[in-house]
Amino acid sequence: MDLATVIGLSLAVIGIIGGNVVEGGNPAALLNVPGFMIVIMGTMGATIIAQPLERVIGLPKAILKAFFGGPPHKAGETVELFVTMADKARREGLLALEGDVENIHDEFARKGVQLMIDGTDPELLREIMEIEAEAMRHRHEANFSVLELAGGISPTIGVLGAVMGLMSVMRHLDQPDEIGPGIATAFVATFYGVFTANVLWLPLANKLKNNSKDEQHYLAVVIEGLMSIQSGDNPRIVREKLEGFLRPSERTKKDGGGGGDSGQERQAA
Amino acid sequence: MDLATVIGLSLAVIGIIGGNVVEGGNPAALLNVPGFMIVIMGTMGATIIAQPLERVIGLPKAILKAFFGGPPHKAGETVELFVTMADKARREGLLALEGDVENIHDEFARKGVQLMIDGTDPELLREIMEIEAEAMRHRHEANFSVLELAGGISPTIGVLGAVMGLMSVMRHLDQPDEIGPGIATAFVATFYGVFTANVLWLPLANKLKNNSKDEQHYLAVVIEGLMSIQSGDNPRIVREKLEGFLRPSERTKKDGGGGGDSGQERQAA
Amino acid sequence: MDLATVIGLSLAVIGIIGGNVVEGGNPAALLNVPGFMIVIMGTMGATIIAQPLERVIGLPKAILKAFFGGPPHKAGETVELFVTMADKARREGLLALEGDVENIHDEFARKGVQLMIDGTDPELLREIMEIEAEAMRHRHEANFSVLELAGGISPTIGVLGAVMGLMSVMRHLDQPDEIGPGIATAFVATFYGVFTANVLWLPLANKLKNNSKDEQHYLAVVIEGLMSIQSGDNPRIVREKLEGFLRPSERTKKDGGGGGDSGQERQAA
Amino acid sequence: MDLATVIGLSLAVIGIIGGNVVEGGNPAALLNVPGFMIVIMGTMGATIIAQPLERVIGLPKAILKAFFGGPPHKAGETVELFVTMADKARREGLLALEGDVENIHDEFARKGVQLMIDGTDPELLREIMEIEAEAMRHRHEANFSVLELAGGISPTIGVLGAVMGLMSVMRHLDQPDEIGPGIATAFVATFYGVFTANVLWLPLANKLKNNSKDEQHYLAVVIEGLMSIQSGDNPRIVREKLEGFLRPSERTKKDGGGGGDSGQERQAA
Amino acid sequence: MDLATVIGLSLAVIGIIGGNVVEGGNPAALLNVPGFMIVIMGTMGATIIAQPLERVIGLPKAILKAFFGGPPHKAGETVELFVTMADKARREGLLALEGDVENIHDEFARKGVQLMIDGTDPELLREIMEIEAEAMRHRHEANFSVLELAGGISPTIGVLGAVMGLMSVMRHLDQPDEIGPGIATAFVATFYGVFTANVLWLPLANKLKNNSKDEQHYLAVVIEGLMSIQSGDNPRIVREKLEGFLRPSERTKKDGGGGGDSGQERQAA
Repeated sequence: MDLATVIGLSLAVIGIIGGNVVEGGNPAALLNVPGFMIVIMGTMGATIIAQPLERVIGLPKAILKAFFGGPPHKAGETVELFVTMADKARREGLLALEGDVENIHDEFARKGVQLMIDGTDPELLREIMEIEAEAMRHRHEANFSVLELAGGISPTIGVLGAVMGLMSVMRHLDQPDEIGPGIATAFVATFYGVFTANVLWLPLANKLKNNSKDEQHYLAVVIEGLMSIQSGDNPRIVREKLEGFLRPSERTKKDGGGGGDSGQERQAA
Repeated sequence: MDLATVIGLSLAVIGIIGGNVVEGGNPAALLNVPGFMIVIMGTMGATIIAQPLERVIGLPKAILKAFFGGPPHKAGETVELFVTMADKARREGLLALEGDVENIHDEFARKGVQLMIDGTDPELLREIMEIEAEAMRHRHEANFSVLELAGGISPTIGVLGAVMGLMSVMRHLDQPDEIGPGIATAFVATFYGVFTANVLWLPLANKLKNNSKDEQHYLAVVIEGLMSIQSGDNPRIVREKLEGFLRPSERTKKDGGGGGDSGQERQAA
Repeated sequence: MDLATVIGLSLAVIGIIGGNVVEGGNPAALLNVPGFMIVIMGTMGATIIAQPLERVIGLPKAILKAFFGGPPHKAGETVELFVTMADKARREGLLALEGDVENIHDEFARKGVQLMIDGTDPELLREIMEIEAEAMRHRHEANFSVLELAGGISPTIGVLGAVMGLMSVMRHLDQPDEIGPGIATAFVATFYGVFTANVLWLPLANKLKNNSKDEQHYLAVVIEGLMSIQSGDNPRIVREKLEGFLRPSERTKKDGGGGGDSGQERQAA
Repeated sequence: MDLATVIGLSLAVIGIIGGNVVEGGNPAALLNVPGFMIVIMGTMGATIIAQPLERVIGLPKAILKAFFGGPPHKAGETVELFVTMADKARREGLLALEGDVENIHDEFARKGVQLMIDGTDPELLREIMEIEAEAMRHRHEANFSVLELAGGISPTIGVLGAVMGLMSVMRHLDQPDEIGPGIATAFVATFYGVFTANVLWLPLANKLKNNSKDEQHYLAVVIEGLMSIQSGDNPRIVREKLEGFLRPSERTKKDGGGGGDSGQERQAA
Repeated sequence: MDLATVIGLSLAVIGIIGGNVVEGGNPAALLNVPGFMIVIMGTMGATIIAQPLERVIGLPKAILKAFFGGPPHKAGETVELFVTMADKARREGLLALEGDVENIHDEFARKGVQLMIDGTDPELLREIMEIEAEAMRHRHEANFSVLELAGGISPTIGVLGAVMGLMSVMRHLDQPDEIGPGIATAFVATFYGVFTANVLWLPLANKLKNNSKDEQHYLAVVIEGLMSIQSGDNPRIVREKLEGFLRPSERTKKDGGGGGDSGQERQAA
């Protein structure tokens, strides 16, 4: 499970429920079937309407993915891989990479390298890879945009619940003892709406969006790497280019000693 | 009828109205002619102002389309179609596709293939198809933007109804028995405004937007396919390119066995 | 007067005011000089500040235009015109169009055709026409963005009015009889702010925006048509290209019978 | 002083304060030191945090500029200037413009003409001028985005003031006489927050944004004019191109009589 | 520490807390453990969920950076540096710059100059530098977007706290003495939510965004400078181009006397 989700969710729940307890509130009052029905079922219904059915079916999986995440793309390793391949390709030709294809765990990179070995025209290779990257972005956007919709709808459905609750209270102003608890109950729906939106839907949408941006960044590394190898760039140049995508801390530290190498390479070039 | 709309709408109504009933509310209190007039007619009026008349007339049809949807474009089938055509065109020439035109059910794809057979210049063909795709996007955007407008206006018109209702109540504070029910009635307008916005207009706008994005994605598949066939690409390359647009689950599974084929093709190429 | 504006505005007023009357409210209570001064003058002042003076002067005209609209561009007719001109230009040369210039009612199209006849370089012709189209977009955007600003400011100025009214009420809690009517009066400003924003400013802004988008679409038809004629495209291609901009219902129905023609043209080409 | 600012501000103040007076409110109640401190100092503090120090120092000047404006760029005159220069340059060569440089009052245009006379390569000239235009846009955006931030923050800080005020009131519910005036005072902060946001910050931000867009439009005229002169365009074409940027009312009316001229020019060309 | 942050934060705190004190409020009432737990922990939890873990760890550093800032890039000095290098490179060749590399303090500029001396192809050099600039933008965007999320979530979590507090109050309407203080306490959460959003998160997000835009502007200066030197531009042109990025006040004042020089250069060119 993605550790940030665990930590973040625990912190939010402890803070919000704990704060209420410290204040003297009764957290049991927050457990309320009607509020749950109104907000959760209402929000689910609305987000299901907003989607074609096939995407609705994939929704829980996308939410779980936001919860549990996956191993992040190790951009640093990918850079190393492409530098090594650039070196090999330069010395022994592109076909020499045939044996390495199996060792590439990432499907996107493997597809690209295979197409390159097959002798696909660079223009066409870039086009195929960019279509694939764009289609991924399109699929991921569909997921986080549902969560954003849920995050936008959920608090107003909470208000809807409060309005309906207050309407009941208002019709029975002649029973003063019921007013207070009635209003309190009416507010539970607002609590559910605001809580789920701000602690679940919006942060998870944001996480999926961030993951999607990071992935697009990673895919760009792969595409640039393929183009660089195919055009026979110097491995040093390949590294220089691809490391531009990395945070400074992820970059290889050999740069210092590499100064000499690069000098040699410059003479050779 | 689009199943997601049925399921979603039922879920939302059961959740929201059912939650109110469980809470002890009286759903009959939600049936209220003035609230309906203020919110529904007010929102309709405002959205009609926002449109040229001819588009107003097409509006109900667009909303029904959002409700009932249509058969989704089967992108997977389209890829197969283009791969087959690419194969045929390569062996027998573009004119051999003449007989297949009738079997293409999608109008956009058929127009493109016909133009290609007619020998339209590739540049011009792409331009014509992109004009058509862009015009579709323009038409669809007009539809979902009306629903977005309705979704934005409707809750505030609900507030307007509440304000007018509260004004009546405030003028008669001397009749304490009337205060509670008066406020309750005033709130019905808010209920209508928030309910229609969050359960109807915004989710339906979102659905139309999603459908439009999916369609643009489909149109891109068709345009890429046409370009690929016209430039005489290898059918394997056509598949590689177009499958990039599909979700992994939609892609042909022959890829494994196809490794050998692709090897042969590579020799032949 | 633009019929949609009349219908929409009537519907909204009947719904909102009528709903209030049915509910037992007194619409006369909505006529209130202070509320009018605060909201209407306040919003006008704020939008005047937001504009250079010369644009302020043109504002009422822009709003009237949104109200009354103008005859929509008949894109269908324009396509016919360009197809006819393409045919003539192909047979008799561009100069033969000299006599048709006078019959072009739309200024933009006329300017383009005149420049084309004058032998303006295609690159330059496109550039001149695009500068003109962009400048139109810039001018129209200025208009609808003022209305959007008014729509955003007006409800909060309504709240301002309510706050000031409530402040007066709060200072006189010792006169209980005055409280109710005082609050009711305070709310009128909110009514004006929300009503004008949602029934006037925002829908009208939306209408101007829609009109501007439609016009840009129309201008694109004209520019494409000019380019097509100048490069000597086949009239059938000109039709194919320009009809892409039209809704399917606007397209010429001769397409069926035209199949034969297009066959001939193909042989001739 | 920019007349629109004076008129708009007067109208807004007369409407809002006057409306309150007509309603029987006491405008003196709106003068309130704590409310002023909370909202004005709070908003100032927040916007200062949002900026690097050097830009904070330039802020008051930018606000004054929004208030007082400057003489608008006279795009019409600029078009005339460039048409005249195009004519001269065509007949006597670019160097003949040396004497006119001093008469160009606008710094941006003067720099461009000077560079053109110096024989700067067209590509490079365009690049230099576009860097300058983009840097201007960047500087102006920084100014109006601060005002937008202030406009967004100020009403919520007003709410903050109301919340703090209500908290004081709530702690002294045992002094019923104090409740009304206490709530009234608490609301003053809301008044300040909403008033300054909607009558000052947001309209002024909008004005600076409009001015910036207009200026970019003007800079585009200059750049197009330079390119046109340098490429030796016919003065008639220069006019045709640059007048595309002007509102129809600003365009030269000689067009009618110019029909004959343009005929001659066409023969000469 | 960034002076604007100190001044702005002090001003905001003095204004808001001071205003409350002047009004007769008790600032101690704003110190409230439950409110702090609910809002601060809740917001922290939600923003942690929205991020991959590694970015969560870097968050405090990013916030501190927003607080303390760093020495701004001295764009003026950089222009001088590039003009000097352009002059040297023109007279003695690119390799002559080898000795200057060590004196370039900014890492981005140094990398660029080093690559240029190494004889990297201009196309490739621009590409490498733009990848690096884009990756920086991507990293910085991640930081300010977290703060924007916190600024959006924090006030609604404040409302959540108020709702929970009011629910407790409503359940004990039979103890009238507790109502006032209970409501006051419930509001503290709203205070925390609105205060932190508007005085901390949103202004700091804005500052990081501004800094990022300024940095991108600076990086563009460096890239343009590199391209200009590599293509052997005249130092005068290099200055002309790069000074376009500077505010007028930062530009070299030698321009007047430089008129003569530029005359000479023009003859020499």
